[in-house]
Formats: sequence, C-alpha cells, structure tokens
Amino acid sequence: MASTFTSTIPSTGQPGPTFHAATPAEVDLACRAAAEAFRVGLGRAARADFLERAADGLASLGDRLLEQASLETGLPAMPRLAAERDRTVNQLRMFAGVVREGSWVEAILQVGNARRTPVPTNDLRRMLIPLGPVAVYGASNFPLAYSVAGGDTASALAAGCPVVVKGHPSHPGTGAMVAEVMRSTAETSGLPAGTFSYLPAGGDRDLAIAHELISHPAIRAAGFTGSPSGGMALARLAADRPNPIPVYAEMGSVNPVVALESAGEAKGVAEKLAASAVASAGQMCTCPGLVFAVRGTWFENLASAMSAAISATPSVVMLNPRIRAAYTERLASHLASDGVRVLAGDANPNSPSGPLVARPALLRVASASFRRNASLAEECFGPAVMLVECDDTADVHASLERIHGSLTGTLWCGTGDPDAPAVMALLAARCGRVIVNGVPTGVEVCAPMVHGGPFPACNRPESTAVGPLAIRRWCRPVCFQNVPESLLPEELHERNPLEIERLVDGVRSR
Amino acid sequence: MASTFTSTIPSTGQPGPTFHAATPAEVDLACRAAAEAFRVGLGRAARADFLERAADGLASLGDRLLEQASLETGLPAMPRLAAERDRTVNQLRMFAGVVREGSWVEAILQVGNARRTPVPTNDLRRMLIPLGPVAVYGASNFPLAYSVAGGDTASALAAGCPVVVKGHPSHPGTGAMVAEVMRSTAETSGLPAGTFSYLPAGGDRDLAIAHELISHPAIRAAGFTGSPSGGMALARLAADRPNPIPVYAEMGSVNPVVALESAGEAKGVAEKLAASAVASAGQMCTCPGLVFAVRGTWFENLASAMSAAISATPSVVMLNPRIRAAYTERLASHLASDGVRVLAGDANPNSPSGPLVARPALLRVASASFRRNASLAEECFGPAVMLVECDDTADVHASLERIHGSLTGTLWCGTGDPDAPAVMALLAARCGRVIVNGVPTGVEVCAPMVHGGPFPACNRPESTAVGPLAIRRWCRPVCFQNVPESLLPEELHERNPLEIERLVDGVRSR
Repeated sequence: MASTFTSTIPSTGQPGPTFHAATPAEVDLACRAAAEAFRVGLGRAARADFLERAADGLASLGDRLLEQASLETGLPAMPRLAAERDRTVNQLRMFAGVVREGSWVEAILQVGNARRTPVPTNDLRRMLIPLGPVAVYGASNFPLAYSVAGGDTASALAAGCPVVVKGHPSHPGTGAMVAEVMRSTAETSGLPAGTFSYLPAGGDRDLAIAHELISHPAIRAAGFTGSPSGGMALARLAADRPNPIPVYAEMGSVNPVVALESAGEAKGVAEKLAASAVASAGQMCTCPGLVFAVRGTWFENLASAMSAAISATPSVVMLNPRIRAAYTERLASHLASDGVRVLAGDANPNSPSGPLVARPALLRVASASFRRNASLAEECFGPAVMLVECDDTADVHASLERIHGSLTGTLWCGTGDPDAPAVMALLAARCGRVIVNGVPTGVEVCAPMVHGGPFPACNRPESTAVGPLAIRRWCRPVCFQNVPESLLPEELHERNPLEIERLVDGVRSR
Repeated sequence: MASTFTSTIPSTGQPGPTFHAATPAEVDLACRAAAEAFRVGLGRAARADFLERAADGLASLGDRLLEQASLETGLPAMPRLAAERDRTVNQLRMFAGVVREGSWVEAILQVGNARRTPVPTNDLRRMLIPLGPVAVYGASNFPLAYSVAGGDTASALAAGCPVVVKGHPSHPGTGAMVAEVMRSTAETSGLPAGTFSYLPAGGDRDLAIAHELISHPAIRAAGFTGSPSGGMALARLAADRPNPIPVYAEMGSVNPVVALESAGEAKGVAEKLAASAVASAGQMCTCPGLVFAVRGTWFENLASAMSAAISATPSVVMLNPRIRAAYTERLASHLASDGVRVLAGDANPNSPSGPLVARPALLRVASASFRRNASLAEECFGPAVMLVECDDTADVHASLERIHGSLTGTLWCGTGDPDAPAVMALLAARCGRVIVNGVPTGVEVCAPMVHGGPFPACNRPESTAVGPLAIRRWCRPVCFQNVPESLLPEELHERNPLEIERLVDGVRSR
C-alpha cells in the first residue's frame, strides 16, 4: 500500500497538500540506478555542464520557488530565501568551475628514477577518485542551500558521485520542484539516469526511508545536516554495515561569543549580536546561543541593549511543529534551571496549536550556575540567546571549557587587549571558525571557509560542508605505481593537463 | 597489584623475560600529561628538532636494536629489520622536514575586499591545527616502522599532537628500547614532559590498556595497525565515547593480483609473485594473497613455476603464537573448502608447541568454487597464496567483484592488452594503490604514496598511513575571520612566511 504524508504550513499551523512517500522498492531502485550510473561514470565535462545548467534551471524557477519555500518554511521570501537561492545557484556554478579546473583531484606525480641510488624510485601518481553513490539528508532550516540541490549534493556530483536525496518532510513541495530541475537537467546533460534521484519522505515512512537508504549496499557515503541525535543515529547505522561507510554529519552548535569590554560601546555589540541570534528565527546553524562577558557596568549595558533589541523583535514563525516543540521545551527547561532569569521574551511555552510562532528570548545566568548545569551548554535551536555573567577573565576561560565543539566562536575585543589571545586560543580549540568583531551568521562560500568543527558541531571535524574543499568528503586517493599511460586517468598523463608539480627524487619540477 | 607479562620468543617457542604492564593509574597519568603538553603546545622548531634527534637516537642504537627486534619477531636482522630501521629513521627525518617546510598546514588566505559588490568579502584565513593527544596502537609485523616510533607516532608528533603509545605485547623489549629514545629525546628537545609516553602492555592487562586508552577523555584521535576485529572494536569504542573521536585503522588486505597472459613468460611473473607472497613470512600487510589468471597453458606454467618457487622456500618463523594459530586455522579451513587444492607447502597445521615455524603454501581453486565461498576472499595472514583459475576475462571480472577493499591491487599485462583497462578499473575501485608489472610489497615513503584503501583494508579510505600526507589524519581546519594579526597564528601573518597563494576576490596572487 502506498504511503502518503502532509507537512504543516508554519504560518497557519494547518496541514498542506498530501505527498507520496517513497516505497522500499523506490529506495532500492534509486540506489541501484546510482550504482549503475557510477559504473558507467559521470564524465568530467558532462557533470560540469550539469551543475551549471542546474544552476540556470533553479534560477529560472524565479519567484515560484521562493514562494513555495516560504510557504513551507515560514521564512520570508525576500530577502532571506532569495539570498539562499542565489547562494545555492552560485554554489552549483562554483562546483562546475571546480570540476573544469581540475585541481580538486590533488594529484601528486613522482617521476620514477631508475638510476637513483641505493634503490631506484618507482613512477607513482596519486589522485582522488570518487567514492561512489552518496546519500544526502538535507536540513529543514535551509530548504535550498542545504537540501536537494545544496552543498552536499553539488559537491558530491562535482566529485563524480551519483546522489540519492532523501527529501525533508518539512518542505516536500520545495524539494519536489528542485528535484525535478535536477532530474531533467541530468538527463539533458547526457548523464546516466541514476545520476540524481529524489526520494520524497515523510510521515510513517520518514525514518524507514532514512534507514533503508543508509543501509543500502550501493550507497558509499552520506551527508547529513540536522540534529545531533539524527546525525549520530545515521552514523551508527553506517558504522554497523558489513562495509562501514562515512557519514558527514553537521549537527548542533551553540556558537559561543566572548564580549570583552575593550570592544567599545556595548550598545553596538549588543545590537549586532541580537540581530544575529534571532536571524531566520534563530534557526541558522551559526546563530550565537551563548554570550560570555565579565560582570560590571559594561555587562549591564550589554544586557540592557540586547534586551531592548530582543524585545523589539517581532514574533517569529518557526520551521515545523517538532522544532517549535523542541525549542519551547528546551527554553522552559533553561528557565526552570537554577539561576536563570529571562531578560526579554516570553517565559511561557507557546500554545501547541495554530501558527508556529515564538517570541525571541534573552536569558541571563551567572557563570557559577552555568558551570554547574551542563544542559545550559547545549544548543537551544531557535530565537533564544543566553548571557553568561562571569566574575573575571579567568572565569570566562573556565566557562568556555564547558563549551562543546561548535561551528563558530566569536570574540569582540579592542586592539591589543591582553585578554584576547587566551580567549582566541580557547575558541580555536573548540570551533571550526573564529570571528573577531563580527557575527557568526553569514557563511561565505569560498576556498578558506570552514563550516564544520569538533563534535557535536560535526562528527568529522577534518571536513567542511561549505566551500570547494567540501568535495574532499566524497573522495579517496589512489596511487598508480608504474602504470603505463594507456591505463592512467587522463589527469595523470605525461602531458600533465592540470600542470601539477612533478617530483623527481622528491624535488619539484614542472 | 602490579601486573606482568612475557612474550614468546618465536625461534624457540619459549617465553622471554618478564615485563611490567601499565596500570590504570599509569594510563591515566600518561593521558593527562599528554593533555597538559598539548595545552602548553609543541613548538614548531622544538618538534622538528625532536623528530630529527629521535631519528639519530634510533640509528645510534645500532645492531642492538636489530638483534632485540629479531629475537622478539623472528624476522631476520639483515636485511629485513635493518631496512625497516632505516625506513623508520628516514620517516622521522622526513616529518622533521615537513614541520620545518610548513605547507602541511594547507593554509588558504583570502584577503578581504571592503569594496567588493554586491557585498564586501571578509578576510578569511584557513589552516590546519592539531587535534590533541593521539593514541597509537602499533603492529606486530613492523616492530619499528609501524610501532612505537613508526609512521603514526611520527606524523602525529609532526602535527603537534602529543602521543601515547600502547606497546605491542609481542615485542616489549624492542618497544621499551625505542620508547626510551623517544622519551629522553623529547626531554632534551625542550618539549613538555607529556609529549611522548609509552605504556607497556601485555598479558591480562593488554585489552584493558587498549580500552582505557581509547576511552580516556584526553585522547582526541587514535592510529591502529592490526586485525580487522581489533581495529573495528577500537573504532566502536571511540564512536561510543561522549565525544566520539576518529580512529584511523589499517587492517586486513588480500592484495589481489591479476596476471594476464600478455605479461610474457609465466616463470618470471611467478617467481616475483612467490617471493612477494612469502616476504617476511607472508606477514607484510601488502603481501599478495590471491592471484587470478585465465585457464590454459599459461596458467599451468604460472602454477608450476609458483609451486616450484614456494616449495623451494625454507620454512618461516612467524611473529607470535596467536598469529601462527590464526594462520594454520585459516589455512586448514581453506584446504577443507570445496575445490581447493594444495600445490605446494604443508597441508597439515603445524604442531602447536616449539618454534613458531610454518611452511609457505600455494593453493589452487577454480573460480566457480572461489565465488561460491566468501571466506576464500578473506585474508589468510601468513605465507600462503591462492591461485584462482578463471574461465575467461569476464570470469576474472566476476571474481574481482568478490574482493573486499584492499591496500593494493596488482596487474601483470603486456603493452596494449585490450583486457587491461577493465581490470585496472576494477582494481582501482577497490584498492588504495595499483601496481602494474611489479609486486605490492615494498611501500615507498613519499608524497604520492597511498597506504590505505576501502574497508576492511582501512576504515578511513580517504587517508594514507604512509608518506607526508599521513599528517592530515591528526588535524582539522580552522578558519579565522577578520582576525587581527596579533591574534593570528604566525603561518597566516601578512608577511606570509609560507608563501601561500593569496586570493583576492577568488583570484590568486602572491
């Protein structure tokens, strides 16, 4: 019997239209088709074309896509979703460029030297090759940039890995629109049929589809963006396969901020932090959740300015009932904790029916209470931020020691503040990106970007989910020893099309 | 009560001297000291000096080290262990050079552009930083190159990670000698006390020490070389920690060989393969275990020449009783399998007492039987190699499909053989290194080397355990956003000491 599901329209709390959920046979079919596509191979030029045409295709959906995504997520079409759409489109184009340029294969050519003493050296040529079909589990909070045609999909396709996307139950209409662009573009780009598949998922079938996909023998790696519990469950299933596969899971992040008095006027800092904390209803993975500052007048100024800014923020619409429920529950638990006070926002959980609105909240706690209660260091996904009042800089350090791995860490300070280096070191030791005198929200898609970090921000802190290096997640190196040119991949041929540095007896030459 | 253990001297089968096994308190102390060393930091110049002096120190142990290692492993001092010692020494020197040269940090500098439209770009500077204390679990089969001061230890120290080594119970005397060089050299190089620690392990405490170490909160990553069961047990314990950590495990490998008739005279191929298969008593991780060839006169010539070569090989001494027992058990199981015949060597398991000798063995099986029995595709660690008689090249392909991930794959063929490309593709799809017309044993320590491969050869096929890129396993990237120079690591300063390419609006400049 076919299974169906509906999502909740956040602005009304009412159910949306009914969608079909993929059957076990459809999951199997998509994975087998991906394996066959991988066997045939995703040609370099064809997949660059595909990525570029997919970018054009998404762009040409125009307002229709933004309206659908806005309806299903409660995020405003302008400027929020338009910016996300542009980012998604640009990301696809960037990866097309990465494929064409070619250096992503990280080739190393060592020319053999039969005359070297005491032993001759072999001709050794290394490059990255794709792992195979990749399963992508998109996020609810970025229905475009981290979903069907988002960073995981774009980077995996760029590497030459076919992709099977599990659709997110929270934006099925958006997912279907994007998937149709991807599917039809793969076809017109001359790629094998299984290059891209989309599995609509939701309702009773949601978890089952997730499990069937990660357990399918054809799948060789997975990308996930979501909660720590979801990501780790997937990683465990992947590790328990007869042939374990990597899962790259981006999960929870509190994104600590340390504000030192040397940063200058507290009001300016407060307004920037408050805006960042409630951006997209506080549902960005890089929204700051904890702000540490030292007790005193400056702290009080920071607290009142943040309080004013948060109080002035209108109610927000959250992504789906589960996220709203988790938010109100976590907020209530924080508020019930010893020493936690509410400075702005609603202390009472929202009514469970009707529109999925929430009031942004600012909490305050003394560092001693914060350090006593480990749950206060956990992410409260949604429009809440907590100020931690520290006794002195040593106390800031001690409090930071309680912070788990995070995508970002932010430091506000003035030039030459003697306390800054130690805070910087503590932040760098637990975050993937450290920002000075800025906000953590706003992730630039560029070469040096690190969107990852120690657990639980990510289960693979050596990776980034954003930027060209995101492609590394879907590859492994192969070394070709004394392999004649006719059997070598083109990238490693003698004419050296990628202009890779060649090593002769360990010395570089062209 | 203190725990002690003895190892078995392979050449006699008798117990060696008694060693102390680390207590739980000693494990804890070593891990805490490593955490403290990491907090203090392993300076760049100091750790390069350390690695270089450690190389000198190991070299200056001279024959004493080789004799001890030979006594405990049964491997000949000359040339086998001397070559391994030289490799270990050179590897330490190579990593000293890697640290001094500095490009291992894989820095990317994007200079901010406040005038860029539509939005200004941030100043973003990325580099790799060390993960923290690393636990090293060495191998029995390379008492120097993959043990106390082997590749895992050298690469982790090079990255700036303190190392805690669990000693291998099979060569405790060798381990202690090397550890003493490492410990005293760290001290004289001005590094913190916890930079390097060695935990002698064996007897009742062996497994317990392994578990205590991987579960210790101070440990942030682990390197393992050994059996798939050991490696995966460790990986599971690491994944079940409150903060999961990576384990880089190099495990089992059958190292398939495909010999095509176009390779030329069968005798030459056979002799090279036979020598490689029984090298170091067949106890190298890259020894070829399965040889596929097509039925006919050439196959029979290959079989008789290999048979003659294996028969002419003297009995070998194996590493320890457990490995010898596992070998004889696996060999007996292979021989009891439907369709498997012995062409050379002893079909009967060796006597369980006395010297740990074994007879090299050559087995033969028809591909149909091979494909019916999955256990025949599993590694038989020791001096055994199996010839698989295939019907035709399609049958070679079908048989290769049964091979699990492997460190190496080897193809013997003549120039322009039309069957070669398909075999090459199948080997590259399941191996970390592909060799043409050579043998897989002999792993060069150099930049393009890949010593890794799909599961079960390795649980992290994106990594290599050999060569300068082995350092990547112990690092993660951090991105510094708009961080003033005074708070940036030296490598990312404006004067650009590493001469890293700088990006301005995505375009390269110096």
